[in-house]
Amino acid sequence: MKTAIDRLIDKIKEMDNPTVIGLDPRYDMLPECIKSKYGTDLRDVCRAIIEYNYKLIDSVCDIVPAIKPQIAFYEMFGTYGIEAFCETCRYAKHKGMIVIADMKRGDIGTTAQAYSNAAIGKTPVAEMNYAIYDIDFVTVNPYLGTDGIKPFVEDCKKYNKGIFVLVKTSNQSSGELQDLRLEDGKTVYEKVAELVNMWGEDLVGEYGYSSISSVVGATYPKQLEELRKIMPTSYFLIPGYGAQGGKADDIALGFDENGLGGIVNASRSLMCAWKSDKWKDVYTDEQFAEATRAEAIRMRDELNGAIKSK
Amino acid sequence: MKTAIDRLIDKIKEMDNPTVIGLDPRYDMLPECIKSKYGTDLRDVCRAIIEYNYKLIDSVCDIVPAIKPQIAFYEMFGTYGIEAFCETCRYAKHKGMIVIADMKRGDIGTTAQAYSNAAIGKTPVAEMNYAIYDIDFVTVNPYLGTDGIKPFVEDCKKYNKGIFVLVKTSNQSSGELQDLRLEDGKTVYEKVAELVNMWGEDLVGEYGYSSISSVVGATYPKQLEELRKIMPTSYFLIPGYGAQGGKADDIALGFDENGLGGIVNASRSLMCAWKSDKWKDVYTDEQFAEATRAEAIRMRDELNGAIKSK
Repeated sequence: MKTAIDRLIDKIKEMDNPTVIGLDPRYDMLPECIKSKYGTDLRDVCRAIIEYNYKLIDSVCDIVPAIKPQIAFYEMFGTYGIEAFCETCRYAKHKGMIVIADMKRGDIGTTAQAYSNAAIGKTPVAEMNYAIYDIDFVTVNPYLGTDGIKPFVEDCKKYNKGIFVLVKTSNQSSGELQDLRLEDGKTVYEKVAELVNMWGEDLVGEYGYSSISSVVGATYPKQLEELRKIMPTSYFLIPGYGAQGGKADDIALGFDENGLGGIVNASRSLMCAWKSDKWKDVYTDEQFAEATRAEAIRMRDELNGAIKSK
Repeated sequence: MKTAIDRLIDKIKEMDNPTVIGLDPRYDMLPECIKSKYGTDLRDVCRAIIEYNYKLIDSVCDIVPAIKPQIAFYEMFGTYGIEAFCETCRYAKHKGMIVIADMKRGDIGTTAQAYSNAAIGKTPVAEMNYAIYDIDFVTVNPYLGTDGIKPFVEDCKKYNKGIFVLVKTSNQSSGELQDLRLEDGKTVYEKVAELVNMWGEDLVGEYGYSSISSVVGATYPKQLEELRKIMPTSYFLIPGYGAQGGKADDIALGFDENGLGGIVNASRSLMCAWKSDKWKDVYTDEQFAEATRAEAIRMRDELNGAIKSK
């Protein structure tokens, strides 16, 4: 059986597209044509979100390899939101997409195990083992060290799943901790990179990449290039493209000579393409899914251009 | 109106008890007298957990100031689990307890805002604002810097809530990142401590402590003592007592000369007191709640003894 990272890379190669669509719904971003069909209580809002996500998945599932739902945007709607999250993951898998749940979990021992049970493992009850989210990859926070990562790594082995560990994040203040320089001259994020390399050793697949990989932001090209060198087995989940300012040429620095090594996330620019400056004169509110597809193709071509001409 | 930390300290003083009961249910730890009343599908398991939690809350709500449910142990049962989490928080508040949700969220910008909406703020939908978990305090991870904390801090101000930021955690491998020494001679956790001090500046209440406080493990007494000095306005949520090896005398180092400054968590030792070596010959499975109360009193007296004789 293929490892999780091999399944993801196969999909990226098959579609010739190193992008992942972030599905981070907020009520105020839904198109009027969907909003108008539902009420505004939490249950109705979540039904609207499910319809929106289904249509977005339908519109890109043959050209985009993966979705990345950010669970915060579902949790904020309570249990109905978690249901919408599960529905979204289930539907994307049914449509053949890889699901990367952005949960940034970070805890220790039995708690890390409980988080892992929910995300990629199974929850034991008497003689049963229940799969809960059953997604392919989950993002994880390294601040608590190996204790916080090990239960996930074990489940990756057991259930053929993967994780992306935060190494260097895309946000403005990411340097406050991550860039601190240690007495040996290395930065904190370089130390985290070394840990991730170690955690991922046993899970390197046929392309030379590990199912224990990392998150590296598009907004810090120097670090992206440097981390590509010191993390040769780490696939990069790259946020920060588009709205946050990460450019295709910068992002290309995170890729290897075979055009592999990264998967680039875009959320708002894809989800709300129909109201963007680029597409608002081409598509109406009712055509939001077509606009997302058009933007996904544009983004794919832009990224591939930059990666191939590197 | 009192700040969140003042409400917590009032409760601690009123009960003369600096402890918080961790409610981290697993199916296999439930007493037979509850398990036998329910089936083993996820819905039934969560109904059993709710009954268990209610009875534990009933048994200690007049002597223990706060509960700390760890959301991972609910999330692993899916949407029914999240419902059980909400029910537990709601019931504890109804019984007058402070609720500290252990969620260790860490993300940026709109995502951190979404997490904060769910935990301590409100979720906007059209003209409405929905409170979701509506708990008093939530734990937060600092790895992403100020961007990840600011939305929580704003909601603390707006809704009179609080957060505990991970500074030095209780687990064995916590030093892998947190203890790294920087070129200026400080450790990573000391830098985090400085950030927490800064984030909490505007929210210091009448006892001199801030609603933006921190998590410091019981298992590292030297650091606990040191952090007490460099974080004079930070209340410490202290995990690691009991099962993890933290001793009362060590924990006392985290307290100030007025006997304030910390709230000590115990989960398993309280929840499963009836099967512990200390109490298994005194209480039966059916008396699990009485055993929890007895252990809560023993723990309170032990901690108070150590704090007062410091």
